[in-house]
Amino acid sequence: MIKIKGVKFAGIYCGVKKNKKKDLALAFFEKPALASGVFTKNRVKAPSVILTRQRINNPIKALIVVSGNACVCVKGDYEDAKIVTKYLANFLNVQDKNVVHSATGVIGVKLPVDRVINSIPQLIKALKDEYEDFAEAITTTDAYKKVENLSVSINGGRINILGIAKGAGMIAPDLATMLVYIFTDAKIEKKALDKALKEAVESSFNSMSVDGDTSTNDMVLLFSTGMAENKIITLREGLDKFIEALKKICIMLAKKIVKDGEGATKLIEIVIKNAKNIGDAKKIARTIANSPLVKTAFFGCDPNWGRIMAAIGRAGVSIIKEKIDINIQRMPVVRGGVEAEEFDETALKKELSNNEIMVEIDLHSGKATTTFYTSDLTLDYVKLNSSYRT
Amino acid sequence: MIKIKGVKFAGIYCGVKKNKKKDLALAFFEKPALASGVFTKNRVKAPSVILTRQRINNPIKALIVVSGNACVCVKGDYEDAKIVTKYLANFLNVQDKNVVHSATGVIGVKLPVDRVINSIPQLIKALKDEYEDFAEAITTTDAYKKVENLSVSINGGRINILGIAKGAGMIAPDLATMLVYIFTDAKIEKKALDKALKEAVESSFNSMSVDGDTSTNDMVLLFSTGMAENKIITLREGLDKFIEALKKICIMLAKKIVKDGEGATKLIEIVIKNAKNIGDAKKIARTIANSPLVKTAFFGCDPNWGRIMAAIGRAGVSIIKEKIDINIQRMPVVRGGVEAEEFDETALKKELSNNEIMVEIDLHSGKATTTFYTSDLTLDYVKLNSSYRT
Repeated sequence: MIKIKGVKFAGIYCGVKKNKKKDLALAFFEKPALASGVFTKNRVKAPSVILTRQRINNPIKALIVVSGNACVCVKGDYEDAKIVTKYLANFLNVQDKNVVHSATGVIGVKLPVDRVINSIPQLIKALKDEYEDFAEAITTTDAYKKVENLSVSINGGRINILGIAKGAGMIAPDLATMLVYIFTDAKIEKKALDKALKEAVESSFNSMSVDGDTSTNDMVLLFSTGMAENKIITLREGLDKFIEALKKICIMLAKKIVKDGEGATKLIEIVIKNAKNIGDAKKIARTIANSPLVKTAFFGCDPNWGRIMAAIGRAGVSIIKEKIDINIQRMPVVRGGVEAEEFDETALKKELSNNEIMVEIDLHSGKATTTFYTSDLTLDYVKLNSSYRT
Repeated sequence: MIKIKGVKFAGIYCGVKKNKKKDLALAFFEKPALASGVFTKNRVKAPSVILTRQRINNPIKALIVVSGNACVCVKGDYEDAKIVTKYLANFLNVQDKNVVHSATGVIGVKLPVDRVINSIPQLIKALKDEYEDFAEAITTTDAYKKVENLSVSINGGRINILGIAKGAGMIAPDLATMLVYIFTDAKIEKKALDKALKEAVESSFNSMSVDGDTSTNDMVLLFSTGMAENKIITLREGLDKFIEALKKICIMLAKKIVKDGEGATKLIEIVIKNAKNIGDAKKIARTIANSPLVKTAFFGCDPNWGRIMAAIGRAGVSIIKEKIDINIQRMPVVRGGVEAEEFDETALKKELSNNEIMVEIDLHSGKATTTFYTSDLTLDYVKLNSSYRT
């Protein structure tokens, strides 16, 4: 098990979830951590997002996560969120402004705030080096915990990165009911930390989609304890290597989240090549990734490439149909906008039973390339989501 | 049965559909009809769309529709579409440019063009006043035929309007695999005809969505035989009344199409009130209408209004959360951005078992209002679409 010097974790059951699973998580920093955050673009924002955004540039002593209740769109939700962080700060003998907070779960249901604050002493007592309880306590409809880590040498010292994520449904570009916490012991400047997070998120969590819905509560937070032995990472020194490592962690977590998309049976990787610009490439990738017709076809192992062509056409991007090539599982499917002569429907159908599918689309219109991750749309997605609340 | 003077219909089986259902339809105008059209905005356009768009401002003698094959994204598709209209024109002894054409069905499969052209004599022989065969022959995955009609007095004469539509899956704003043909005997100027169609489509077919996908083949065509006894409708005289009647027909057809959305069990009417402008209102309505989470909740009769709030928030429109009111089935659900005090979950859950649901959202931010139609997302939608092609 990897260890990030200077941070301890806890996860307990406090009474928010009806099914009695762990629903309260804490990360505690022995010395104030440097932090950076990226937040949902949804205009209906949860109090946890508003609070954490205000505080993320302060030195951070603790992160508290409630799962099972999003604490948003309820009278007094902002006060409830504040009280939770206030109580925690009091017990830890730190200031409110050094505590950040996330919440995930049903929207519009009153948080049983007494149960949360009454459990805080027990939560603090449960702190330990091991992060498994924390990873479990932040989940909701997740089928499994999502943890990734790696070690790398930068600026003359070995640094560790630990990423813990939560998310299954409602995942879309620009974040979703997705919570991601990344911890590192790297010594790093604040500006470099911010830049690294922004870049890593763009090519991972902002390049994936389960169902196009984005949540009111999402955030990706990166904390650095600075306790590794590296020479400090700055915008000029060691940052590329740090970003590369951070991207790796983020892409691994993003794939895990998509694979755990509610009801998903397949991870679909959409690679757009040679678009005019990166904006066009992303628009096309996203339109394909969010097309229910494309997603149900993949669920049914149906090599219905016409649906992909139709999605490309309606992405709102200027394209030349006659230039489009499509490969699926490295097999030629479309050449010059029409069915490839080598297209082998039977062989492709067989290939589509894999649980990882690669779709490559070459637009032959420029030099921009992007990769996007999505899942299929399945019977279980509908079953799960037609009965989530009640 | 309503009769539009000057137009005859036919619908036969010619060998395109594997299930041997009717797949070739014809409308024939005794005297050249005045016509107007609205076409898909998908940048991958079928030859039938390209051809018909070129010809729609000519006097029209005939419309031929192939169902079961979209005739697009196949080598030679444009030539195939042209041959079909050419053969029909020859047999009818008219010019190519006076014949329009639609196709609907699978993308990327070669049209058995010989079967189509060999059946043209039989198709012409089948022409009659009755439109039922035509209405049947244009369907694909439709569960039922879609026909609406009405009569109204304008400028001193009674005029008739007959609308025949096709569409079930892949329906979205800005058209989809949706074909709509409207026939009227009204005497009307071309400019007035164009304006009427544009306005009627905006508040009907461009205000609905089944799954957000738009097709390569869609069109709405309006034909006028001019054989009614009214004084000619112009931009200045009688047009408002004509638009009103046309809108009625179009909204009735749009509702039928949405109700027949693949696998749909419910028609959901989303009314956005008091938005800043109509663009904002439509963006919000569309985001709600295309949210898989909202749509699965309605399928499950789950009063999960938090998903509606989240959709409003991510529509990309500036809103004030604290001003939002939501009613569902005329029952108060949200007031000022939080759960309404009168919210009665049990009563609402019961109401949601209806097959027509009304969602009203008041933004209290302006004066613009719009109505949008969508369906729920069901297990049958996934079943149907994961096995359509193969």
